Amino acid sequence: MEQCITIESLRHARNTLGNVGFVPTMGFLHEGHLSLVRRAKAENDAVIVSIFVNPAQFGPGEDFETYPRSLEQDMALLAKEGVDIVFTPKAGDIYPQNYVTEVSVKGVATQLEGASRPGHFTGVATIVTKLFNIVQPQKAYFGQKDAQQCAVIKRFVADLNIPVTIITVPTWREKDGLASSSRNVRLNPEEREKAPALYKALQRAQSLFQKGERDRNVLEKAIRDTLKQNNIEKIDYAKIVDPLTFQEVNPVSESGIALLAVPFSQARLIDNLPLALE
Amino acid sequence: MEQCITIESLRHARNTLGNVGFVPTMGFLHEGHLSLVRRAKAENDAVIVSIFVNPAQFGPGEDFETYPRSLEQDMALLAKEGVDIVFTPKAGDIYPQNYVTEVSVKGVATQLEGASRPGHFTGVATIVTKLFNIVQPQKAYFGQKDAQQCAVIKRFVADLNIPVTIITVPTWREKDGLASSSRNVRLNPEEREKAPALYKALQRAQSLFQKGERDRNVLEKAIRDTLKQNNIEKIDYAKIVDPLTFQEVNPVSESGIALLAVPFSQARLIDNLPLALE
Repeated sequence: MEQCITIESLRHARNTLGNVGFVPTMGFLHEGHLSLVRRAKAENDAVIVSIFVNPAQFGPGEDFETYPRSLEQDMALLAKEGVDIVFTPKAGDIYPQNYVTEVSVKGVATQLEGASRPGHFTGVATIVTKLFNIVQPQKAYFGQKDAQQCAVIKRFVADLNIPVTIITVPTWREKDGLASSSRNVRLNPEEREKAPALYKALQRAQSLFQKGERDRNVLEKAIRDTLKQNNIEKIDYAKIVDPLTFQEVNPVSESGIALLAVPFSQARLIDNLPLALE
Repeated sequence: MEQCITIESLRHARNTLGNVGFVPTMGFLHEGHLSLVRRAKAENDAVIVSIFVNPAQFGPGEDFETYPRSLEQDMALLAKEGVDIVFTPKAGDIYPQNYVTEVSVKGVATQLEGASRPGHFTGVATIVTKLFNIVQPQKAYFGQKDAQQCAVIKRFVADLNIPVTIITVPTWREKDGLASSSRNVRLNPEEREKAPALYKALQRAQSLFQKGERDRNVLEKAIRDTLKQNNIEKIDYAKIVDPLTFQEVNPVSESGIALLAVPFSQARLIDNLPLALE
């Protein structure tokens, strides 16, 4: 496994490979990331993983400085998976001082996470565009846990005619249902015990939908009620939306997806579940 | 020469070619465009020219509807130059209804043409990014006549790590010095007679610079005075700027460039000249 730090060295190393599957990450890798790597490994000649905590997608007051980092452990995990190249660029090379360009997405990027985190999806769209232009993969892999991120990426990739196929991989969950996330380590023991309620709440909405409930308000209330029953009082949002546009839909259709965001003391967690049987 | 109308057919045809030189145009081709094509032909295995009057780079009240078009004549000219593929996409394929993504550039894109034509460079940056992703050329060719457009394109290509080399080709001029432009046909006979004064005014500033004048205000006044002496009273701007950032600089350095924009009755013309000997 080769580690590339400069953009030039990555381009050079990439040119020796055939079809590339690309997994962009912010590091602190968990089983969810590794499931993306394994899928990429199965579907391509070679796999490139990037590790870059992207300052542009963190807002003021968000957790850029304290976002968990573990490069040495990440490298060991990726080597074990048979990854070909790990790209670990410096922020100064990705965003030189005279940098003035942004990729901005309206529509799907303006709801929910876009509303809660202004500028977040512009930061995501810009870094992913840059990484795609540097790595030039055939396919790129993203976790369904970040459902809106997946929708935003599919949107701008189509809109800008970027020649990369976007693959969404199902959310990896702990045994108790908590979606794997680098931020889970920031839950205190009491919060960690409560956290599986996020998935339970989404499952509750899914179950009601599958029994025939199509009223968005009823389904969203069921999510909020389940969270409250599990002593989670603060909820950022609990919504049923269309999975492509992220617009609220009522009555809810077969493609509807339930999403929630819950702030804990040191971490804000998100999760989602399609309402129809997967 | 093959004409491709759909994005899919262009991608398919492009895949049969080696290194591609790309000349994006809005059609109504003149000798300036053909000089780009000849340069592309000399430097690459194959040449692709696009003809697309891009609605996104015209503001409300600008001349999108009346922009001159001559597809049949353009095709004949390009066939004669030995162009491999002409890409003539439909606006509905380039901007489908659910399209929501923009490439926006600050800094260099905010001055002069950016200030006079809000949204213009966002439209340019977005379409050029899209065309690059569709055509995937090794090199792309732009005329120096649109100096700020060249600077904006070089800026976002670097910022987004787009793997295309941008080549700027010197301005093609009529015998009397008027810079070739598709919009020149919209000058009435009296205006056409006055129009070479744009180049004369820039040459006046260049001559003063080469005699040692470094005061931006003196050089800019010389441009305006020359225009007035030639009965051109309305001037959009006449400026000396840095050719990379398009910021005003005083005293003017060797890299300084003189630019002007002059509105005529049915056309707004721009031109520019580096102040140091070319």
